[in-house]
Amino acid sequence: MNVNGQHFRTIWLKQEDPRIVQIIDQRNLPHEFNIETITDVSSMSIAIQEMHVRGAGLIGAAAGFGMYLACLEASLSTDFKQSLKTSYNQLKATRPTAVNLAWALDRQLEAIAQVESGDAKIQVSLNTAQAIADEDAAFCQRIGQHGLDLIRKLSEAKGIEPVNILTHCNAGWLAFVDHGSATAPIYAAHDAGIPVHVYVDETRPRNQGARLTAWELGQHGVAHTIIADNVGGHLMQRGKVDLVITGTDRTAVSGDVANKIGTYLKALAAKDNNVPFYVALPSSTFDWEIRDGVNEIPIEQRGDEEVKYAQGLCDGKLTRVLLTPPESPAANYAFDVTPARLVTALITERGICEANEQAIRTLFPEK
Amino acid sequence: MNVNGQHFRTIWLKQEDPRIVQIIDQRNLPHEFNIETITDVSSMSIAIQEMHVRGAGLIGAAAGFGMYLACLEASLSTDFKQSLKTSYNQLKATRPTAVNLAWALDRQLEAIAQVESGDAKIQVSLNTAQAIADEDAAFCQRIGQHGLDLIRKLSEAKGIEPVNILTHCNAGWLAFVDHGSATAPIYAAHDAGIPVHVYVDETRPRNQGARLTAWELGQHGVAHTIIADNVGGHLMQRGKVDLVITGTDRTAVSGDVANKIGTYLKALAAKDNNVPFYVALPSSTFDWEIRDGVNEIPIEQRGDEEVKYAQGLCDGKLTRVLLTPPESPAANYAFDVTPARLVTALITERGICEANEQAIRTLFPEK
Repeated sequence: MNVNGQHFRTIWLKQEDPRIVQIIDQRNLPHEFNIETITDVSSMSIAIQEMHVRGAGLIGAAAGFGMYLACLEASLSTDFKQSLKTSYNQLKATRPTAVNLAWALDRQLEAIAQVESGDAKIQVSLNTAQAIADEDAAFCQRIGQHGLDLIRKLSEAKGIEPVNILTHCNAGWLAFVDHGSATAPIYAAHDAGIPVHVYVDETRPRNQGARLTAWELGQHGVAHTIIADNVGGHLMQRGKVDLVITGTDRTAVSGDVANKIGTYLKALAAKDNNVPFYVALPSSTFDWEIRDGVNEIPIEQRGDEEVKYAQGLCDGKLTRVLLTPPESPAANYAFDVTPARLVTALITERGICEANEQAIRTLFPEK
Repeated sequence: MNVNGQHFRTIWLKQEDPRIVQIIDQRNLPHEFNIETITDVSSMSIAIQEMHVRGAGLIGAAAGFGMYLACLEASLSTDFKQSLKTSYNQLKATRPTAVNLAWALDRQLEAIAQVESGDAKIQVSLNTAQAIADEDAAFCQRIGQHGLDLIRKLSEAKGIEPVNILTHCNAGWLAFVDHGSATAPIYAAHDAGIPVHVYVDETRPRNQGARLTAWELGQHGVAHTIIADNVGGHLMQRGKVDLVITGTDRTAVSGDVANKIGTYLKALAAKDNNVPFYVALPSSTFDWEIRDGVNEIPIEQRGDEEVKYAQGLCDGKLTRVLLTPPESPAANYAFDVTPARLVTALITERGICEANEQAIRTLFPEK
């Protein structure tokens, strides 16, 4: 999507030297737009773990490129197989909840195993990394087209009033390679001339909504309003939200979705107020092994400093401030699970389906 | 309650000069503990509106002392009645949601009307202000005793494991004159040797939980953990919360409660996970005129800068940082309404009752 009018993806190979991966370092957005150059597996692992890149699809794409860098490194080592395995484990340990990480790593491993020579492995891992990234962008674009139909229908009923969409965290193009999942239908509707307005949950503690989603939408000219995470229920009670669209970091085959902490609360409010609650996802976020999302999906816990501090701009400088009594402890659960019973439907690259195993398997019969 | 071992109320008359009111200015807590001296109605109005003081009971007590200052001012004016009326209107316009404000102002107006001379009016308004403050503290203490029974029962079932209580915003002693409403049972349980642990919602955008509740609990030695507002649903899903206790700024006679924005979301999560959801209140927060809380209680909207900025400590200095893209708009609804159907029971100074009109009127038959 566009940054100051120029098209960007979130991750790409450097044109002048395809042994170098580049990413948008998202940590200081919206205040600083930084591009980071990554040339080894350790740097990519840090970039994933410390959230220079984040979001279901982008974690997968970053892992894909990470395995390409791993092959480049392995070809310089005495034991290709051992080196690759070490890199695989290092990348896999970075984030526990998003299933795209393991999915991309395993897809790479399988592809790399198909060929013999080191050079062939490098080439195949490069092709696979590119394919993962290209598919992610293409799938998100299709999600946008399917979601567009939903928004168009709501808009036809509302006339010139904008369709009010609430979203949580950032399931925007910054969370994928391009387009985004939850935002793809929004961008598609906006581009089709349908009036839309987005309530953006700020999404503490890391403020991905206030920092990233608001910035994305602003760059694309989409009307939006930032709200504290506490506000969505009130807005739904007062009829100010026409639909909710969120992303997901791991989708159980039952339709349970693990997404950014707080998603579950918005799903409860949507249910209580008869507001449709949609989850948008490329099929790479399905976990075909898990049925009971609440009990089986691992929930990442991060450092307490993300809760105790907030980062923002002060006198033109990025500044971190302590919000709490210094001695008070804090807990930082990064995701929660929304049971399928609260999800109106899933918007996938193949179309919209109910959040249950039968409907999901009907859409993806090969799985 | 205690601040560094010394007993404080949140508002009091200066001992050396009873024409002067003093308050704890809560804006910079926990980083700075400031006492503010207030000698006129305008300063008291600003203190309420700009939240130097806040919280249902304390707003009422501040309004009570405000009317005492109003009588002192009126006695120096040419038209006592007109001057008093202007002050009344000024104080009443400060905050729309908490009913204690109007309740205290009207109680003062009625008391002042009972006597004739200016001096008598001053004396009666002083007595009434003190009575409002003393009753608030006494009622909160009784709420603590009633709530203690609930916590004791839960503790007996859990053995040595602490009872985990989740609270939202600050319904602590800082929100009242002393003891607090939601915190009163917690302090009573802690003082009775019952192991308790409190999950403190940070409560964006003003962070009353992270700033005030955490500080209060820490000063009193109560174990607690600060969490982002998004986290409570996940904790309840995982069985980590034994009960929720919140306060209320206005309680409809039907049992609907208007409390800090986000309370409704926690009540939904409690219901979904069979966690008891209690609301603690002195009877001054009842609005005996309102039945449909969701549609009839006015919800205050505050400035967007509270959402777009966060204040905290940086290098020992209070610093405000911009969290969002500068051009993104934000909305700031300060309260929401939790329907009575989601409230397990109300904890009042007269005991615990179900959140419905019949039960409430049985406990308060004189209303």
